Amino acid sequence: MPVVPTAVEKLVTQLARLPGIGERMAARLVFHILSEPETYARQLARSFEDLIEHVRFCSDCHMVCDGEFCGICRNGSRERDVICVVERVQDLLAFERTNAYRGLYHVLHGVLAPIKGVGPDKLHLPSLLTRIERDEVQEVILATSTDVEGEATALYLARYLASTSVTLSRIATGVPLGGELEYIDPNTLTRALDGRTVMG
Amino acid sequence: MPVVPTAVEKLVTQLARLPGIGERMAARLVFHILSEPETYARQLARSFEDLIEHVRFCSDCHMVCDGEFCGICRNGSRERDVICVVERVQDLLAFERTNAYRGLYHVLHGVLAPIKGVGPDKLHLPSLLTRIERDEVQEVILATSTDVEGEATALYLARYLASTSVTLSRIATGVPLGGELEYIDPNTLTRALDGRTVMG
Repeated sequence: MPVVPTAVEKLVTQLARLPGIGERMAARLVFHILSEPETYARQLARSFEDLIEHVRFCSDCHMVCDGEFCGICRNGSRERDVICVVERVQDLLAFERTNAYRGLYHVLHGVLAPIKGVGPDKLHLPSLLTRIERDEVQEVILATSTDVEGEATALYLARYLASTSVTLSRIATGVPLGGELEYIDPNTLTRALDGRTVMG
Repeated sequence: MPVVPTAVEKLVTQLARLPGIGERMAARLVFHILSEPETYARQLARSFEDLIEHVRFCSDCHMVCDGEFCGICRNGSRERDVICVVERVQDLLAFERTNAYRGLYHVLHGVLAPIKGVGPDKLHLPSLLTRIERDEVQEVILATSTDVEGEATALYLARYLASTSVTLSRIATGVPLGGELEYIDPNTLTRALDGRTVMG
């Protein structure tokens, strides 16, 4: 965009780096912001600053939080002997929306991806081991994604934690509720068959 | 999201107000930014500030620019007796990408939309009239969108400028290049028929 001011071009380039936002979309966002009152862009700038200044990661589970520990780790009514291991904060939030899980979490902040240069040293693994031993954790639920990288990470974790006495479990794979079998991929159907349970 | 820090929630809410970004997408963006080095969020904050501080609108055509006039209006090699009227800055950029247009522009910064409370007073109309008379403009190309609001705006402009001696034209409507006729809507096909040109 040779005819637009540098400030516009710079913000477009920065926003286009965000996942799911291409250059065209980024330009659309910037021009939208320019069409709004100045206070909107100021609020956004302020909010990005606030994000850096006020957001910390829980010293125990690495969830985003305000202080040293997150609300879930501080919550006395959560079961403290089970830890659900997830890749990202969003995954934790997805489990929280179920209202079905009452244990604690551990956010890895990533998944093993050798091609992208993400090895075990980039994930929050030592603190998981520390928590298991310190808090006498009984069960660790491996809730990484069910794609190749997530599966590989779950396998790696299983080996990594093999020396502990903790029970390791993996979330179930199968046909999602409401899924039309016709559109389910063969690998998922195979898993659904393998994991079948006896009824009644 | 009751378990996330206020700073996260606030930025998610603000980003979700942007066009094409829902709450889920906004959350994804914020967590991505949190996973990047702090400098990234700082750069974004700085860029939003820069946007307000450094971006102006051209006093003539209302295009975004650094100074009082934009690069196109300042460019001595552009034809100064033809003005292409567009709704938004992005539309101007689309015409610039053609490398086919050598005249000037006029950005309305909106389109007539009575339902949304956008009347003629919200568009840059008086300055268009001023330019036509001051610069002895010969032709005004009405290049608002070809949707209902854009068409209505073009009709309004035609009436608004009827008292001037300027030649008014409207961009052609018809089948886009590479368009498969099977998938073209009936209204467009009707226009393509009405606007047919004799060959050879």
